[in-house]
Parts: sequence; structure tokens; C-alpha cells
Amino acid sequence: MEINLIRKSGKFNFEAENSGGKTVELDANPKIGGEGKGFRPMEMLLVGLGGCSGIDVVNVLTKQKEPLDDIKIKINATRKDEEMPPIFDVIDIHFNLYGDLNVQKVERALALTFEKYCSVSNILGRSATIKFSYTIHN
Amino acid sequence: MEINLIRKSGKFNFEAENSGGKTVELDANPKIGGEGKGFRPMEMLLVGLGGCSGIDVVNVLTKQKEPLDDIKIKINATRKDEEMPPIFDVIDIHFNLYGDLNVQKVERALALTFEKYCSVSNILGRSATIKFSYTIHN
Repeated sequence: MEINLIRKSGKFNFEAENSGGKTVELDANPKIGGEGKGFRPMEMLLVGLGGCSGIDVVNVLTKQKEPLDDIKIKINATRKDEEMPPIFDVIDIHFNLYGDLNVQKVERALALTFEKYCSVSNILGRSATIKFSYTIHN
Repeated sequence: MEINLIRKSGKFNFEAENSGGKTVELDANPKIGGEGKGFRPMEMLLVGLGGCSGIDVVNVLTKQKEPLDDIKIKINATRKDEEMPPIFDVIDIHFNLYGDLNVQKVERALALTFEKYCSVSNILGRSATIKFSYTIHN
């Protein structure tokens, strides 16, 4: 897995590119001069967590032949601002699941995702409390 | 810090949005049906590491009044493929620094970044070996 970053403008605005040519812009905290030109680096970790767990939930529900029509994910995180560096404290991740879904299968899919499959959750969960919840919309 | 994700197309292609309205697309590993429509979630962690450490290096060198003309960052990572989940094993991050820079000040900036300032490095370094290196181009 390879990522390349170049500075795009100003002091803190970077562009990151993966090996498939996809790009995303980053920028610093406004406190040190960031100008809102991209994602903050710590936001990228939450994006990774949402993508990783979302993909795993979709994958497990699909294998269970559950009729998942759509999925939306909301993540809120707090940081340990009194520590240096200010790493994440609590990460809340909520899954909105659309379809005529079986509650037990949804709970099984979420348990498998967070206890077994999701690499990003495993990594971030070593230093933060990750809380997950769900709502089924049918 | 809040991130929202929606499913954009197919089963595994998500779009993530931060509170400033910036978006980035994600996609799954081709092994489970990903189609290369976005960054892989684990790539997002490397993007965050590059951005976080790059911003901190720029910030420290700027405070030191070092003449940093440009910066490029390359990251390569291996995963513990024999484990479940396959988290990162070794992450190599190389800084290409452009300008008439003082070696001692560059080394001090990198040490401060990885030992003190960079939240993402602190988080990922709990489960992976992070190796950093640099080349000064002047």
C-alpha cells in the first residue's frame, strides 16, 4: 500500500494520492494557520473507520442475504485535548440501515465487524473508546 | 469532529463528507468486490499519517525560520496478513525536503513531530512500527 503527498498551496495544504490515482486534499487546524482547504488529518482516520466498518457491515449482511436497501453512517468523535498529542477519546459511530432487516442478523453483523473484521476499528480501538449503535428504517 | 458517509454506488462505494463539505470516495478491497472507485479505508489512515506529520514538520521548520521551499512525502506500508484483522505491520514514511536546510534542525523537527506533536502517529504507532527518514534537496 503506497500513498504519496505533495504540498499543493500555502504552508499546510497537501494533496494525497493513492496508487490508483485517486486524490484527496488535506489542511491543518485553523489554530496553526489551516484554511479549510481539505480534510484534517485526524478526520481521515474517522473516514477510514466509517468506510472500513461500513464495507464490513454491507459484506456480512449481503452474505446473510439480508435485504439491505441503503446505509448511511454518522461519526462523532471527541479528543483528549488535555493530552499531548490530543488523540481521540470517544468515537461514536451510528449506522442508519434501510430495508426489511432482521434485528438479530444486524446485531450479528455489527458484532462481527467490530470484534473480528474491521482493521481500522482494531487499530483506533487501542487508544479510543469506540461506541457503535444502529437504527433500522423499514 | 463529525463525518457522514453515504453509499454512492454499488455495494461498497461510499462517499464521506466532513463538516466543511469536503468529500472523498471510498471503495472495498477487490477481493470482496471493490471496483477501485475510491480510497481503501486503510489507505485513509496512511493519508492521515502523511498529512499530520507533514503539517507538523512544516510548522516546526517554519517556527525555526528554516527556508523550506517544498515538501513531498512517500509512505509505504505492509500489513499483518496472517492475522485477523490484517492491521499494519511496518509503515515507512519518507520526507523529501527542498531548500537550504540545516540537518540538525530537520532532525529536531522530525523528532518533535513523531515523539510529541503528531496525533495520528501516536495512534498508529501503538500497533505498527513507524519508520521515518528524510532527504534534503538543496
